[in-house]
Amino acid sequence: MAERECDLIVIGAGPAGEVCAGRAASRGLEVALVEQELVGGECSYYACMPSKALLRPGELLAETQRVPGVAELASGELDAATVLRRRDEVIHHRDDATQLPWLEGRGVELLRGAARFEAERLVSVGGERLRARNAVVVATGTAAAIPPIDGLAEARPWTNREATTANEVPRRLLILGGGAVGVEMAQAWSSLGSTVALVEVEDRLLGTEEPFASEEITAGLEAAGVEIRTRARASAASRGDGGRITLELEGGDRLQGDELLVAVGRRPRTAELGLEAVGVDPAGYLEVDDQMRVGGSDWLYAIGDVNGRALLTHMGKYQARVAADHILGDADVAARSDLIGSPRVVFTEPQLGAVGLTLAGARDRGIEAQAVDVPTAANAGASFIGRNAPGTSRLVVDDGRGIVVGASFVGPEIAESLHAATIAVAAEVPLTRLWHAVPAFPTRSELWLRLLEEYGL
Amino acid sequence: MAERECDLIVIGAGPAGEVCAGRAASRGLEVALVEQELVGGECSYYACMPSKALLRPGELLAETQRVPGVAELASGELDAATVLRRRDEVIHHRDDATQLPWLEGRGVELLRGAARFEAERLVSVGGERLRARNAVVVATGTAAAIPPIDGLAEARPWTNREATTANEVPRRLLILGGGAVGVEMAQAWSSLGSTVALVEVEDRLLGTEEPFASEEITAGLEAAGVEIRTRARASAASRGDGGRITLELEGGDRLQGDELLVAVGRRPRTAELGLEAVGVDPAGYLEVDDQMRVGGSDWLYAIGDVNGRALLTHMGKYQARVAADHILGDADVAARSDLIGSPRVVFTEPQLGAVGLTLAGARDRGIEAQAVDVPTAANAGASFIGRNAPGTSRLVVDDGRGIVVGASFVGPEIAESLHAATIAVAAEVPLTRLWHAVPAFPTRSELWLRLLEEYGL
Repeated sequence: MAERECDLIVIGAGPAGEVCAGRAASRGLEVALVEQELVGGECSYYACMPSKALLRPGELLAETQRVPGVAELASGELDAATVLRRRDEVIHHRDDATQLPWLEGRGVELLRGAARFEAERLVSVGGERLRARNAVVVATGTAAAIPPIDGLAEARPWTNREATTANEVPRRLLILGGGAVGVEMAQAWSSLGSTVALVEVEDRLLGTEEPFASEEITAGLEAAGVEIRTRARASAASRGDGGRITLELEGGDRLQGDELLVAVGRRPRTAELGLEAVGVDPAGYLEVDDQMRVGGSDWLYAIGDVNGRALLTHMGKYQARVAADHILGDADVAARSDLIGSPRVVFTEPQLGAVGLTLAGARDRGIEAQAVDVPTAANAGASFIGRNAPGTSRLVVDDGRGIVVGASFVGPEIAESLHAATIAVAAEVPLTRLWHAVPAFPTRSELWLRLLEEYGL
Repeated sequence: MAERECDLIVIGAGPAGEVCAGRAASRGLEVALVEQELVGGECSYYACMPSKALLRPGELLAETQRVPGVAELASGELDAATVLRRRDEVIHHRDDATQLPWLEGRGVELLRGAARFEAERLVSVGGERLRARNAVVVATGTAAAIPPIDGLAEARPWTNREATTANEVPRRLLILGGGAVGVEMAQAWSSLGSTVALVEVEDRLLGTEEPFASEEITAGLEAAGVEIRTRARASAASRGDGGRITLELEGGDRLQGDELLVAVGRRPRTAELGLEAVGVDPAGYLEVDDQMRVGGSDWLYAIGDVNGRALLTHMGKYQARVAADHILGDADVAARSDLIGSPRVVFTEPQLGAVGLTLAGARDRGIEAQAVDVPTAANAGASFIGRNAPGTSRLVVDDGRGIVVGASFVGPEIAESLHAATIAVAAEVPLTRLWHAVPAFPTRSELWLRLLEEYGL
């Protein structure tokens, strides 16, 4: 088998792998990037991008109905075929050709095929062996986990892949799991005409977020006609001859649907990489330090979903920058935003934008924390955007340190407002300095003013 | 004349006066607030609020045209009557009754009438004399300046008041002045069907902003059909018998219109207050220190437009908080965000959101500054919001200190994105910490990522 050398091998060309490879290559390293599916990864074709393409029209149509003058001009139901066509454009019809110039421009060599570790720093791809002078980075991501429910796997359920790329609107859609994927897909398909039922085993949706966020998003979904069953555990599933799926719940209830989306979690893609050959256990997430090194290794890194620190595209890209910089010789670089309360947006109607700790999360960590809450729409800016829409905004304040350690904003089109809180939390800006950051009138960012006043400033 | 005492007298119940009075009263002071027109001030009835009510429908309609699925559902021209009705709702039909409960809830006494200084701490309102134990705050704002152009005053031009409250769409509208008021009114009335011509004496609109902002907003207005004449100086104006206005330009050109909006600046409302009685010159803005005290006085304060520091509602309210806290005994409080580069939004299509210094402004101050620019739409989030729309985003970086000293974002619906920059600038967050504030994917806030990369981070 032919063998050749490069500086860095990156396995997996999702957002994390691409960013790591591109950054290292543009700063002088010879980089090989290995991908066995599509360059761009889960996010570009089966997650963030198609889901937002499915959600944006419904979100915007809802806003038009709040603005007199436009409400009268915008009428009717979304045309699913048009929305699905736009979704196909956004995911480039699952052709990764448009991603390649970015890599080429940075001098990254793309190898298509399955990568397998042969030995330390030695990886095979197809009939070729690659030896990394510096490092190997695993960025293979995650896949949907299918829980061991009787008959479920055989019932050919949807995962995020089918849910984001389907070409027909299921008349009735069942969803198992009330996390971000479940609630976004409930919102999206409901906006396109599906009758949706969502089953969640815990007592609320989005169980790691602030309780008010769960309540307000639940209310929004219910207003859109989604049937929500919390504290409901699925016991069996089957697909009948006519193609319909039956989901049985503990207690005896049965739900029927045309499709069933399973969105109960992810599993790392670590099998079939031959990690055993380099002494790494392929079961579970690859544990890394703040430089993204696996198990203290001086050459093996893992970034993005596969290390389990933060299953979010933007945090994978952040880890990619950290890993690339460390490989490039920056000994001081360390990730510090991706373990506790990464910024996150749930693109439902209303949306949730959150960063840092929830109040309960802060108190669990022993922080002397208090929360201040205001209605997101209780300011002049909301006369124009998200008018009269429900939603709460909260800051979680560390009283001892006088800083914001968490923020959650619920409201329509609130996603772009999150970054202000992300800066405040990540940079630990003192409240006494936030007081001098004056929100422009009349924008909804005056909710910051209300929140600081509520805190007593 | 009857005389009585209170702790604090605030003259002028615009946003600054209301906030100052409300804050002081809710913290225990006995406060009298004097207003001779409408509680809520220029902003609520004749500026920020009605202008945004006129602008929002056009802005939102433009966004619907960028989103397939919604574009097909939203068609037609804005119905001006509907928009004007909503504008009337937003300004509460110029009835200030809805503002009163807020004051009452805080125990502020409202006196309607003209205030006049009689002596130090002594103010008359109608047939009554009020003596302030602590302080008197002037918050009387500004009015439109009418320049000494031959015939202009006699031609009964519009000021911001008529431009924001008109009940009919002028077929042809002339605008003198290409600042924020001029460009916003050009955008608004153009969206409602007016044919607009805008005359600006300088070589570009919005002359204190980044040059690219001027260019991009000029292009947006021109695309909306607005005729823009820069380097054009008006020499005379007249209104004919038929009611039409003629504006003559130096060089001989003549423009004709149904109305002429004069938006070339403001003048402080300081006359008729009897300021001479307390030794203050009523000509010009009332100069204050960072505690808002006039000329080193220990009892006379001026906040909002009337002190000339920053003619923006939100900065007036900020000064109001500073003044109130100082009057309440906080000796350390000092305004520091309202002299250089206050946050500001121009609600055109595209919008400008800016804070801090422009590149030229920073260099003028001797700062070793550089600018990094990216297209506002060059990120995944712009697949969904502001798709394919023009617009540049810039950070101005102080290289020596490693902080952002200015930011300008041009793009559709960019207003809510400004507060992140306002926090970064006001809190002087080091770039090395901004690097750890990760923008959520896929939102347009990833322009921060692109900007930091462009800077080399």
